[in-house]
Amino acid sequence: MPSPSRLYQLYNHWMMRTATYFFIFLNLSLALFEEPAVYPLPFLATSVLEVLCLLVFLGRLTHFAKVTLHNVFWKDTKNICIMVAILLSLTDLAVYGVLRLYDVRSIRWSRIVRPIFLINFAESRQIRRAFRSIRNTLPEITYVFLLFMFSLLMFSLMALKLFGERNLQTAEGLPYFRNYLEIVFDLYVLVTTANSPDVMMPAFDFSSWYALFFIAFVIVNTYIFMSLFLAVVYNNYKKHLKNEIRKLAYMKRRKMIEAFNLLKEEEGEQFVVREARWKQLVKLVAPDTSNSHRELLLRISDDEQKGFVDKKSFMQLADLLNIQVVTLKIRRHPLARRLPALYGSAPSRLLRSVVRHRAFVWTYDAIILVNAIFIALDEESPYVSYAEWVFLALYIIEILLKVYTYEPREFFGKTQFWNWFDTLIIFAALTATILNATLKSTMKYNSQQILDIVLILRVLRLIRIVDSIQRFQVIMNTLINIVPTMLTFGGLTLVVYCVFAIIGMELFHGKIQYFPANSNAPHALECGNPALKDSLFARGKYCKNNFNDFASSFIVLMELTVVNQWHVFANGFANVTVQPAKLYFIAFHIVMVIIIVNIFVSFILEAFFVEYSLEKSEVETAIEQKIQELGMGVQEDELHHEQLLDNMESAEHELEGEGGTKSQSKGLVFKIASKRYRTVDALLQRMFEAEIPLEDEGPSFEEILNLSPSSVPRSPGSESAA
Amino acid sequence: MPSPSRLYQLYNHWMMRTATYFFIFLNLSLALFEEPAVYPLPFLATSVLEVLCLLVFLGRLTHFAKVTLHNVFWKDTKNICIMVAILLSLTDLAVYGVLRLYDVRSIRWSRIVRPIFLINFAESRQIRRAFRSIRNTLPEITYVFLLFMFSLLMFSLMALKLFGERNLQTAEGLPYFRNYLEIVFDLYVLVTTANSPDVMMPAFDFSSWYALFFIAFVIVNTYIFMSLFLAVVYNNYKKHLKNEIRKLAYMKRRKMIEAFNLLKEEEGEQFVVREARWKQLVKLVAPDTSNSHRELLLRISDDEQKGFVDKKSFMQLADLLNIQVVTLKIRRHPLARRLPALYGSAPSRLLRSVVRHRAFVWTYDAIILVNAIFIALDEESPYVSYAEWVFLALYIIEILLKVYTYEPREFFGKTQFWNWFDTLIIFAALTATILNATLKSTMKYNSQQILDIVLILRVLRLIRIVDSIQRFQVIMNTLINIVPTMLTFGGLTLVVYCVFAIIGMELFHGKIQYFPANSNAPHALECGNPALKDSLFARGKYCKNNFNDFASSFIVLMELTVVNQWHVFANGFANVTVQPAKLYFIAFHIVMVIIIVNIFVSFILEAFFVEYSLEKSEVETAIEQKIQELGMGVQEDELHHEQLLDNMESAEHELEGEGGTKSQSKGLVFKIASKRYRTVDALLQRMFEAEIPLEDEGPSFEEILNLSPSSVPRSPGSESAA
Repeated sequence: MPSPSRLYQLYNHWMMRTATYFFIFLNLSLALFEEPAVYPLPFLATSVLEVLCLLVFLGRLTHFAKVTLHNVFWKDTKNICIMVAILLSLTDLAVYGVLRLYDVRSIRWSRIVRPIFLINFAESRQIRRAFRSIRNTLPEITYVFLLFMFSLLMFSLMALKLFGERNLQTAEGLPYFRNYLEIVFDLYVLVTTANSPDVMMPAFDFSSWYALFFIAFVIVNTYIFMSLFLAVVYNNYKKHLKNEIRKLAYMKRRKMIEAFNLLKEEEGEQFVVREARWKQLVKLVAPDTSNSHRELLLRISDDEQKGFVDKKSFMQLADLLNIQVVTLKIRRHPLARRLPALYGSAPSRLLRSVVRHRAFVWTYDAIILVNAIFIALDEESPYVSYAEWVFLALYIIEILLKVYTYEPREFFGKTQFWNWFDTLIIFAALTATILNATLKSTMKYNSQQILDIVLILRVLRLIRIVDSIQRFQVIMNTLINIVPTMLTFGGLTLVVYCVFAIIGMELFHGKIQYFPANSNAPHALECGNPALKDSLFARGKYCKNNFNDFASSFIVLMELTVVNQWHVFANGFANVTVQPAKLYFIAFHIVMVIIIVNIFVSFILEAFFVEYSLEKSEVETAIEQKIQELGMGVQEDELHHEQLLDNMESAEHELEGEGGTKSQSKGLVFKIASKRYRTVDALLQRMFEAEIPLEDEGPSFEEILNLSPSSVPRSPGSESAA
Repeated sequence: MPSPSRLYQLYNHWMMRTATYFFIFLNLSLALFEEPAVYPLPFLATSVLEVLCLLVFLGRLTHFAKVTLHNVFWKDTKNICIMVAILLSLTDLAVYGVLRLYDVRSIRWSRIVRPIFLINFAESRQIRRAFRSIRNTLPEITYVFLLFMFSLLMFSLMALKLFGERNLQTAEGLPYFRNYLEIVFDLYVLVTTANSPDVMMPAFDFSSWYALFFIAFVIVNTYIFMSLFLAVVYNNYKKHLKNEIRKLAYMKRRKMIEAFNLLKEEEGEQFVVREARWKQLVKLVAPDTSNSHRELLLRISDDEQKGFVDKKSFMQLADLLNIQVVTLKIRRHPLARRLPALYGSAPSRLLRSVVRHRAFVWTYDAIILVNAIFIALDEESPYVSYAEWVFLALYIIEILLKVYTYEPREFFGKTQFWNWFDTLIIFAALTATILNATLKSTMKYNSQQILDIVLILRVLRLIRIVDSIQRFQVIMNTLINIVPTMLTFGGLTLVVYCVFAIIGMELFHGKIQYFPANSNAPHALECGNPALKDSLFARGKYCKNNFNDFASSFIVLMELTVVNQWHVFANGFANVTVQPAKLYFIAFHIVMVIIIVNIFVSFILEAFFVEYSLEKSEVETAIEQKIQELGMGVQEDELHHEQLLDNMESAEHELEGEGGTKSQSKGLVFKIASKRYRTVDALLQRMFEAEIPLEDEGPSFEEILNLSPSSVPRSPGSESAA
């Protein structure tokens, strides 16, 4: 039996984690192959795959149990959840399989528990946090929702009394506001604005004054209540986010104290950690840090070079290690090393200074604009298609020139997002264009897929123009920064979509069919269902929006998320089944739009504010000061962090010119990684840490785990931050 | 010539201010009577009225000039604005009148400057602040907007390339995505979600994979960019609000220091204000405070009863005066004074304790619910209409019982919103029902208007049920609290609507006509305009949505604000005029939805957060302590501020029972007015003041006026509050 620490390392190995994710998504995507299937597979195949997935999950869980304390493992609800889900899935599969043998059709209801694996496997902490946040928001949302429902029911009652006996008709000739439940539904739809002027028109045509009723309704319900939902969700989101962050921060503080207590030695009046032991520790916990980087950290922690680190500095270690210090190796260009004469010659120097000049960027911006015009032009003309080759050539020349001028390994550094983006787009476009041209000339055939890809790539190139305007870059960077956390919402949406898609397929499968435009099938115009005759659903040609397979269901749910025309869907599917089917659509609206979209908006708001409000942290400032003191820094004042590349170059330039400074002798300079690559989580954690005084050791572990947003321990900063 | 102080008092007199508002709204509502008119008046009449309004504005401005310093008056842009607006209006009116004499038709373009009077008259500070906030937000919004437009144009280009040559058709049989400008418009509409599934369906029917294009588009533009707009607007709104509040707070601090310096006398080592002078001052600035209230304030300011007030306490005076201390006069019920034997008798006491009991409230809640069911029932049946009388009687009995039990002047106190609401609704319903019954019996005729009002009032009564559930009350109180500031947005909306309505009337007047359902007019089905044949506008029966008069224009703009189907309007009006007319609708969308609605949402968010996060201020706590110390308070712990009434009663109750405490002898108790009647502005100001240390005298006047959100003076609190 391997040692526990080996087992733990194995558990956290990236291969194991990737494999888990793979099986989670395989398990979810089984819905594509099970009936009703997009790509049908025999029942045996899908069930074997599912059993395989479940076994993998079980194995993973057992592995986790091995590396966790016994009582911690069994206390954690998420482990219990997974076990129950596995058990349910297996039972359901067995029952369904047996019934199938006897040709009895039953429902594979356990499919809706599949997203549980995505939520509950330890790797998806973000999704779990989002779910916790939703769960915590529910009570307050419920109160606002009840009040909102009350307002809706009251307005519906008024509408019934005001319009019910006027014998009005809708634009489709149906009776208008005659039945209370239908009024409630229509007015709920009006809250979402989906039937906005239509629902008002019959009453408005009857008397202009009735418009006041609808104006009052929209102001109260659409504007005030919907904003109130956002406010409640946002408020709770912030509160719970802060609470989680606070837990993390206290936890870190506690653990650092424990570590200090283990390593401390007495030195004079105080306890300290000696240099050797400190270095050993850093090597152990962060084996990837370079020697020079470790030396730098030591110089910061042991400010006066006394040979030991005191408690206060030791506590900062985790933060120090978390700050990404970029080691700017001032490397000479490979060509400069191999062909120094050629690379250093006058024409070469001229070329490089041309490429570095602002005008070079402007020229290429102009070229991109001209390119945009050519893209918009008709491409049947041969000149335009020749021009395409010219543009491609120009872009490739640009990349080559840049690689010639700048050091290639820096140019394609980890943080050089735009360089990667440009290069990938251009090379993909080049490949696709050549492929297409080959196909065209050899087989006289245009592959539509390749052509589409070429077209999209060609347009995407234009994004580069944004990159060259400073103001836009700032906004773009904020957007790029929040992409990782947006994936959490992708996961959240996936979970909700999966559940609703599976329910939707059970409810509405096969009720609505899509026929191509020139089909002769009976009821082709009514989506194959006579119940849809003259309905808005059929008239809008929405037949392809159905729940006949997993992929179609996702598209329908996406359209429902966008909200517009959702009542047409609800009415259409209610017509082909029963009226209460509308509840499915209302439920989806409440879950997806009122809760999840609002959380998404809250998240964007918060991320945006954090990005805009945060300056450098104290620890970062300390590191930067030290870097400056040691003369190993790039002057931060010169550094607009969007211009990392340029500045690196200017540093190199100086080097070539003057030569012989301290930093040059070492051949490297340090720089704090720019703000643009930090996650919102990290920023928030720092924001909170700034509020805990350094002496505050925080509550005990037990207390930390039970922290709730309402029981805020009164730290000096938390009041003003509330 | 009257003295300056008299002039100033006259200027600020409520009659003068009301008169100004009256003329501002008269001037704005002239659009109802001018061509194209809802209620036509001859040109002479409207122009005389307009000249009258302008003269009043001129008079008001002159009056203001008299009471302001000369250089202050001429430096203020709003005064210049008003003068220019008056001049422009007069010139335009004269030109138009002369041209009219010679039968030349011109445009009354100066009508769009009329809202300037609403914005710029000194009384509407809130609206000006909102406009300033918009102006300040514009630069940042512009950058995001440009980036958004870039993304829109890029996606449009992709759409053109992907779908332009597929010969697809929309559900209406029109060519699909063929023309670049039309694609841009269609995709802009998709950002607002107004044409959500429709715009996708032709491509989706062609190939399911194309749905990905639209999903990407919606995620990037609708979800991310629209949230970003909200974030930018909210961020700026908060920043500028804080700046304005900071200005006010510093200004107050400065003025208090000046006042102190004028009044101070030397006392030992420090300067102080002596008691007599202090009292004189309070009497002067707040003549309405009662003697006992003034005494209370003095006891707080002169804590140790030394006969003078020191600087620190003096500075708090403005805050002290601003805190509404409710003097709860423990008055005996008038009946108890007049008929003590009867009122104090056993049955009377029993009755009163019944009314005070919780069960009494529950009984009436049950009655309201039964009432709701009766309202929903068919009212043709005579039993139902008899039941209506029974319910009215029950409600009136309830009010009488309450007035019998509680002291009437307290029951209808200024802060007893729900009591007022109930009583007014019931009496209005009673009056209207009696009126209707009289009309019905004497003239055999149901007046529809009265009937409608009765119906609405009957339903509104049901709101009372909300009042009896604690949780709902809290939300309702937040909503009631923000009503006053919401009126600001009413003003803002009014200004924008006026401008767009006047432009809209010039552009689209008479192009679209409304005909009743059974009309025989030519093109009745196409809204009187053959250009609308087969358009969605005509098919949706939107003919009554036109710009033919001021009122209709407002309704159309309201529908455009709600956003849904706005593209149908835009296309309809573009069809009957020219295609660039769509720009009018896009401009309205940008101004109203992207900017103003987002500011409204920001405001609701902020108001909600402030309401939820604020506890009592220090000054308030000090006052409460003193009130308690002096034994003149109602125990705050017993006081749920929603139950002011109950507690007052319990206080009275005790009085009856025990008798002879100190507070009783004075016959009054103090209590800080409950949080629910504070404005958001006041709360914010207090929030900021808590952040300035008391010693900080703030910057000089000049500096205060030039404070900008970016040049935040670093006060200790402002960092953590950022």
